[in-house]
Amino acid sequence: MISQELIDKGSLAKEAAYILGLTSTELKNKALEKMADDLEARCTEILAANTLDMEKAKDKELSKAFLDRLLLTEKRVKDMAEGLRAIVKLNDPIGEVENMWTTSHGLQIGKMRVPLGVIGIIYEARPNVTVDAAGLCLKSGNAVILRGSSDAINSNQKIAEIISKSVEDIGLPKGSIQLIEDTGREVANQMLKLNKYLDVLIPRGGAGLIQAVVENATVPVIETGVGNCHVYVESDADLKMAEKIIVNAKTHRPGVCNAAETLLVHKDIAEEFLPSVAEKLRELDVELRCCPEARKLIPESKEATEEDFATEFLDLILAIKVVDNFEEALHHIRRYGTKHSEAIVTNDYKKARLFQQAIDAAAVYVNASTRFTDGFQFGYGAEIGISTQKLHARGPMGLKELTSYKYIIMGDGQIRE
Amino acid sequence: MISQELIDKGSLAKEAAYILGLTSTELKNKALEKMADDLEARCTEILAANTLDMEKAKDKELSKAFLDRLLLTEKRVKDMAEGLRAIVKLNDPIGEVENMWTTSHGLQIGKMRVPLGVIGIIYEARPNVTVDAAGLCLKSGNAVILRGSSDAINSNQKIAEIISKSVEDIGLPKGSIQLIEDTGREVANQMLKLNKYLDVLIPRGGAGLIQAVVENATVPVIETGVGNCHVYVESDADLKMAEKIIVNAKTHRPGVCNAAETLLVHKDIAEEFLPSVAEKLRELDVELRCCPEARKLIPESKEATEEDFATEFLDLILAIKVVDNFEEALHHIRRYGTKHSEAIVTNDYKKARLFQQAIDAAAVYVNASTRFTDGFQFGYGAEIGISTQKLHARGPMGLKELTSYKYIIMGDGQIRE
Repeated sequence: MISQELIDKGSLAKEAAYILGLTSTELKNKALEKMADDLEARCTEILAANTLDMEKAKDKELSKAFLDRLLLTEKRVKDMAEGLRAIVKLNDPIGEVENMWTTSHGLQIGKMRVPLGVIGIIYEARPNVTVDAAGLCLKSGNAVILRGSSDAINSNQKIAEIISKSVEDIGLPKGSIQLIEDTGREVANQMLKLNKYLDVLIPRGGAGLIQAVVENATVPVIETGVGNCHVYVESDADLKMAEKIIVNAKTHRPGVCNAAETLLVHKDIAEEFLPSVAEKLRELDVELRCCPEARKLIPESKEATEEDFATEFLDLILAIKVVDNFEEALHHIRRYGTKHSEAIVTNDYKKARLFQQAIDAAAVYVNASTRFTDGFQFGYGAEIGISTQKLHARGPMGLKELTSYKYIIMGDGQIRE
Repeated sequence: MISQELIDKGSLAKEAAYILGLTSTELKNKALEKMADDLEARCTEILAANTLDMEKAKDKELSKAFLDRLLLTEKRVKDMAEGLRAIVKLNDPIGEVENMWTTSHGLQIGKMRVPLGVIGIIYEARPNVTVDAAGLCLKSGNAVILRGSSDAINSNQKIAEIISKSVEDIGLPKGSIQLIEDTGREVANQMLKLNKYLDVLIPRGGAGLIQAVVENATVPVIETGVGNCHVYVESDADLKMAEKIIVNAKTHRPGVCNAAETLLVHKDIAEEFLPSVAEKLRELDVELRCCPEARKLIPESKEATEEDFATEFLDLILAIKVVDNFEEALHHIRRYGTKHSEAIVTNDYKKARLFQQAIDAAAVYVNASTRFTDGFQFGYGAEIGISTQKLHARGPMGLKELTSYKYIIMGDGQIRE
């Protein structure tokens, strides 16, 4: 039995998606601007709702990092509003005809961008996802059904109430932006199988959430975010550059999916490279977990377990392994990588080229930090997540990745002979 | 417990996919040519294996249409070989960089086509799918795991044995093309959840098979083929053109997914149009199932049930409905369509445009037969199926639709500040 809330919201979303698919960019932009203005105007209400969530979270003695993700401030609400205004400025992909050709029978065939339809987003504590996801879905002509976590329910409800109203005030359908109020597990499970109403599901959160969605959903899923990323330093690398890159990839923002988790070092330069880089990383409070070879050079480090090489730490922890050669590095990445972002530091033309061909990941770097795998950095302007699957979209997903296409065919009576 | 056959073949396929992704077009083409030559050279063996399947099927008293789909002849084997030679001539999408740009930090970012990896194909009786699918997957650098039906097992085994050997003889990996020998239901069910080895599943067959796969698979699925297609004749249509189009869309090849199943007619021209088109269709042995309005004009027709409007007949049967206006036609198609191919016949510019905007289907036609939704007709040269979902690929899927992409990023020491 599917919950009445899902059926009601699913039907409304389907109707809304039909209208949104035919809505002009101008009107969608007006709605986004209204959403931004209303969030700012009603900031006090949002902060009050957020205080309820924060108190509950403190009672539950949730971690400091968790509390920080949950917390809203006046500045953060303003940032959410600015995020929406930034989406206004992005090109609307809908209606774009990427290709048009004429067949030998004189049919004109065009490949036109259209919305996906109804997008389900299942996410964890950050209330800003409610706004980001709603904004990106709206601009790309999709209706959205949001399902946040129970820890953020008061904040999410208030935000959803405000922005749904903005959209309705502009004259767009009620079902354009909806939040599931029931944060029970049963409803989330039902949402995974809501093929009748949802065209796609995007989970945003930790590895556990994503795994659960992928394993149980029958609705098509876009898998996002788990990044066990590597930086491999070849024997001929510019070691100063290599140090800069691994330090940046590990410490610039350790809690995000494009941060590096393992450093692989060619054995010929391990002795020269590792002690100095280890010192630098330790100064920045990075805990090092090393293979036996690397430990000889960094004696104060911990021993890395098999598990460490498979872990996305999302923290100031780095696994280090010395490899015999290029092939061993490739092999290690194939074995432990999550197809997110992988980097080589080298000055060898052939190895640079082969690394980019052989590594199967969303983003494959030569001589740059993995931290650039990001919609803004790529110039996409905003992102709904970073896909680590190969179907539909890979890497940073902007507005275009929230669309599908249809063929429009214009004839003058052609039939097949 | 996953069957040992699936684990063994899955692991081999994964290894093979890695190699195939790095294989030159030249070598893949050589393998395709060898496959074609070997199929022709060993035609007698294939026909002998097919005879076993045909005898079994006759004993089971399967339908004539079924037997025809199962049957192989010398000509059909030659056609399969020619199909492979046609794939040789297609452009290889792998390695194509669709876009390359330089960011403000001086990073060069390119979006490069790569194979999906390992593709699972679950299909019904036609043994030619074994060859078509294997050829398309190979050319696009993917390893394939085929799972045909038990009715065609002898034919499929023989064909798979021949073409796998061709590929190995050329020096490509053993796991490039594999057939699951166990045709039990249990193994098929396990295949649906083989996320560890399969990147995507493509079911090819009837609505029942496709539904079962979509509902149970955790591996990403590309849904193919169910086409409840409509032709809508507007009040201002050129009625001669409309007749030609519906006759073609219904009768040219009624058993395929792009054939029309329902004719919608504007009430203002129903009286002029329906009796003559009904006569024409009846001459071609089409059974007509009509709404009450239409029956008044075609008295000898059957009454259409609700069920009829929802059915993909795949046969010489046509449902007919008279609608009051354009909106009712749109509404009917939204309700009963399967997002495959929809056509309007009109000379009204605004309605033509609105129909193509409002109808949510893979192919939306103005003044042409739905029969053109086909990889060959679109100029894609070959197709693995017609997608009716919106994620990843929509409509005819050629080689490019069997690929993903990755971002290759070239820097000279860039880090994120």
